[in-house]
Amino acid sequence: MALSPNDAYQELVERWGEITIFGSFDSLLGWDEQTTMPPKGTAHRGEQRAALAGLLHDRVTDPKIGDLLESASDDSLISDATSVEAVNIREIRRTYERVMKMPRDLVEELARVTSLSQAAWKEAREEKNFAKFLPWFEQVAQLKHREAEALAIGPTPYDSLLDDYEPGATIGSLMPILGSLRDELVPLVKAITESGRRPESAFLRNHYSEQGQEQFGKAVAAAIGFDFDAGRLDETTHPFCSGIGPGDTRITTRYDENFLPQSLFGIMHEAGHAIYDQGLDREHYGTPMGGSSSLGIHESQSRMWENFVGRSRSFWEHALPKAKNMFPEALDGVELDDIYAAVNDVQPSFIRVEADEATYNLHILLRFEMEQAIINDNLAPFDVPDAWNEKFKSYFGLTPTDDSVGCLQDIHWSGGMIGYFPTYTLGNLCAAQFFEQARLDVGDLDAQFAKGEFEPLRSWLTEKIHRQGRRYRGEELVEVVTGSPLSHRPLVDHLKKKFEPLYGI
Amino acid sequence: MALSPNDAYQELVERWGEITIFGSFDSLLGWDEQTTMPPKGTAHRGEQRAALAGLLHDRVTDPKIGDLLESASDDSLISDATSVEAVNIREIRRTYERVMKMPRDLVEELARVTSLSQAAWKEAREEKNFAKFLPWFEQVAQLKHREAEALAIGPTPYDSLLDDYEPGATIGSLMPILGSLRDELVPLVKAITESGRRPESAFLRNHYSEQGQEQFGKAVAAAIGFDFDAGRLDETTHPFCSGIGPGDTRITTRYDENFLPQSLFGIMHEAGHAIYDQGLDREHYGTPMGGSSSLGIHESQSRMWENFVGRSRSFWEHALPKAKNMFPEALDGVELDDIYAAVNDVQPSFIRVEADEATYNLHILLRFEMEQAIINDNLAPFDVPDAWNEKFKSYFGLTPTDDSVGCLQDIHWSGGMIGYFPTYTLGNLCAAQFFEQARLDVGDLDAQFAKGEFEPLRSWLTEKIHRQGRRYRGEELVEVVTGSPLSHRPLVDHLKKKFEPLYGI
Repeated sequence: MALSPNDAYQELVERWGEITIFGSFDSLLGWDEQTTMPPKGTAHRGEQRAALAGLLHDRVTDPKIGDLLESASDDSLISDATSVEAVNIREIRRTYERVMKMPRDLVEELARVTSLSQAAWKEAREEKNFAKFLPWFEQVAQLKHREAEALAIGPTPYDSLLDDYEPGATIGSLMPILGSLRDELVPLVKAITESGRRPESAFLRNHYSEQGQEQFGKAVAAAIGFDFDAGRLDETTHPFCSGIGPGDTRITTRYDENFLPQSLFGIMHEAGHAIYDQGLDREHYGTPMGGSSSLGIHESQSRMWENFVGRSRSFWEHALPKAKNMFPEALDGVELDDIYAAVNDVQPSFIRVEADEATYNLHILLRFEMEQAIINDNLAPFDVPDAWNEKFKSYFGLTPTDDSVGCLQDIHWSGGMIGYFPTYTLGNLCAAQFFEQARLDVGDLDAQFAKGEFEPLRSWLTEKIHRQGRRYRGEELVEVVTGSPLSHRPLVDHLKKKFEPLYGI
Repeated sequence: MALSPNDAYQELVERWGEITIFGSFDSLLGWDEQTTMPPKGTAHRGEQRAALAGLLHDRVTDPKIGDLLESASDDSLISDATSVEAVNIREIRRTYERVMKMPRDLVEELARVTSLSQAAWKEAREEKNFAKFLPWFEQVAQLKHREAEALAIGPTPYDSLLDDYEPGATIGSLMPILGSLRDELVPLVKAITESGRRPESAFLRNHYSEQGQEQFGKAVAAAIGFDFDAGRLDETTHPFCSGIGPGDTRITTRYDENFLPQSLFGIMHEAGHAIYDQGLDREHYGTPMGGSSSLGIHESQSRMWENFVGRSRSFWEHALPKAKNMFPEALDGVELDDIYAAVNDVQPSFIRVEADEATYNLHILLRFEMEQAIINDNLAPFDVPDAWNEKFKSYFGLTPTDDSVGCLQDIHWSGGMIGYFPTYTLGNLCAAQFFEQARLDVGDLDAQFAKGEFEPLRSWLTEKIHRQGRRYRGEELVEVVTGSPLSHRPLVDHLKKKFEPLYGI
């Protein structure tokens, strides 16, 4: 006998809850691998993760999930598209259909090739030898072409890949906004460069003890709302945030004893991700309603705290005296305007992850355009370095000195993550638009930050964004929260308002 | 068509390998829970472990395992009882049959009751209030009676429980040895107490910095053979060793800045467990041949390094100068004979985990006898405190001042672990007998220890014990390695040889 829609929904949610719990094992396995696992544990960890991936694949592709989705998809449950039930059914269906469309041999081939390809990329980057990565890049590109074809979700092949990272986003929806952003950023960066002004920032390279940075970073993370009873901070080579489950969200950072901003803004960035995670609705844990919306929205939360708060003048009104208490020698004589200018030093450079707030998005736009060329216009991997360098010259006025600071710098393509990059800029755009709205809703944020009051902004974000789970797609959420469609305008306004006075433009 | 014995064996081993890998998730979940998990992660961790337990139960009790066992149990594979195939088939069958015999409602009831019971025990112990634990103790005892009945493995109900921790061991096989041990230990402890001698050990309570203890403990662990590239040392409230998988074995300890032996012997103890784990045959990982033999044999390895090495005079010939380098003030003026005597201070006391090498086994014997009384002679939990105190008086000449230092001191019974205790003394007995044999096989161990050479003993243990996996049951392994059945004699000889001169007996 067929299940009633409601019974089917209940069973679907129960199964998805179990899949989510098994999935959360991988978060711990991954965190531990980066953070605490001894070096010789690598091979066994690989076995563990492969066994878990197999288990998850079997559970998600169980035809019973398809049956339950069908039985549950009844008007009584889905007629209100933003109801808990409708959202959960829609989003589980999305994952189920996506996974079902991928041929098993393609999934396995992608896993195999990207694992080897990342190792080759690492060597190629170290040796500044693109040729070493090229055969792998070609294989990855070919497999991603196949994936795009198998998925056939969007109007163009690249859209099918993009959709994995930012559900619902397409070139058509993003390109107008990102293109407008580029058209505003290129002249802004040019004006900053040509202003001839450079802030005095040498004091940021004084000695800041690792212990002091950890203590200070923890205090800042706690102040902006990271709950250390429900998380922890550790040190890793590559910083990340891992949401293991309700009550357990862990962030990592790295320390440079001769450069304060690395750990501080890194911690604020990861804490931003973590605060999102800690703000999710526990009651819906195990269903899409209890999960985070998209990579772009996730990134909006990290950028919000890192840039819109952490690099604001008002934040430093509050933080500078505390930083001086922690590092009296290194910050001796530093005034508020000094540190505000220093942490907003703009300078075109080759490396994305070291880029300032103004140039960062140009790095992303370049990658977004390169990815479209590779997937939609069949740009051959062989031709990527030249295309990259040419585009870089036109955006930044510089030519990369070699491929290790050019097209070899990021891990993404070697790992098969084509379509991921745009979510970074999407994060910046969303952060700007959310922040503009928060100013209207929450009151004088600057006055609050100057007093060390971050709770009003944090609880606004939790209510408006975190607790919404996956009710809305990224761009929809922006429109629901701010009343306007996603636009380049708030980010451009923010950057101009900050950088024009700083650079006398 | 039925599978050939060989194909059935291959599939059996493959399935068991996957079960082992999933089982290894729990080791990491458990390690993390004790060591790094933030406090609010508790509930989700419980969900994770429950989901995993369900998965493992389903996999182990899959009737296909029974079919494969049947098809594989062919003379061609099992005629040589110590062949890899025969051992794996025998030991997988043992686990399979044991799990299949347990009614599901009993398993769930045991999980539910022991979880609550441990919480009640914790409160009862803190409040020194046995009555608070009594109703739970009664439930646990009743469930363990049911378990023993369901399993019906040994000649008496208690044997069925004991078999879970020490396969093949029975009261009949252990009691003669443990009884003889008791008959020798009671007068020895009495003679020590009455000797009137007490070593000067106040210097062990000087200040030893935690950092120094960690550094010294790590150096000692590395010296005796713990591979820090395949493991790590952390701090927890209750020290333990967790073998997560090949290349990943983690130990923990706790530090008392005013008592050096706690961390030092704790680290040597856990490192002993870990060295066993690191010495297992990786090639057989995922099968019984790649696992450890029994709790008793495991404990023999920890006791070996903690007591037979760590509390020997020759070890301190090597270690004292190094300890003095690390703690020059605390150990100022301390001579070899001082520290040797101090770490061998014998004194009857109430608490098992703080007991010295001579009295320790009396604590275990008492528990072993109490457990037999509870399970086989229906001693009511209500009557346990009186029975405990009476027995304690007869072994130690002391009466516990309250139940928190009497029958409430250990977690085992509240957790349903009845039958576990005897493996501790079994560990001491096996360690003594192995050590006696090692002296014959490896040469002058004392001369080696005095020079800081622990590799000869370590590699002897690895070859004779670690690499044997589960080929032999505990007592069998002792006989194979030493040529004699397990006896109380080597342990008694070791204790007399050490303590008679120290106490002028």
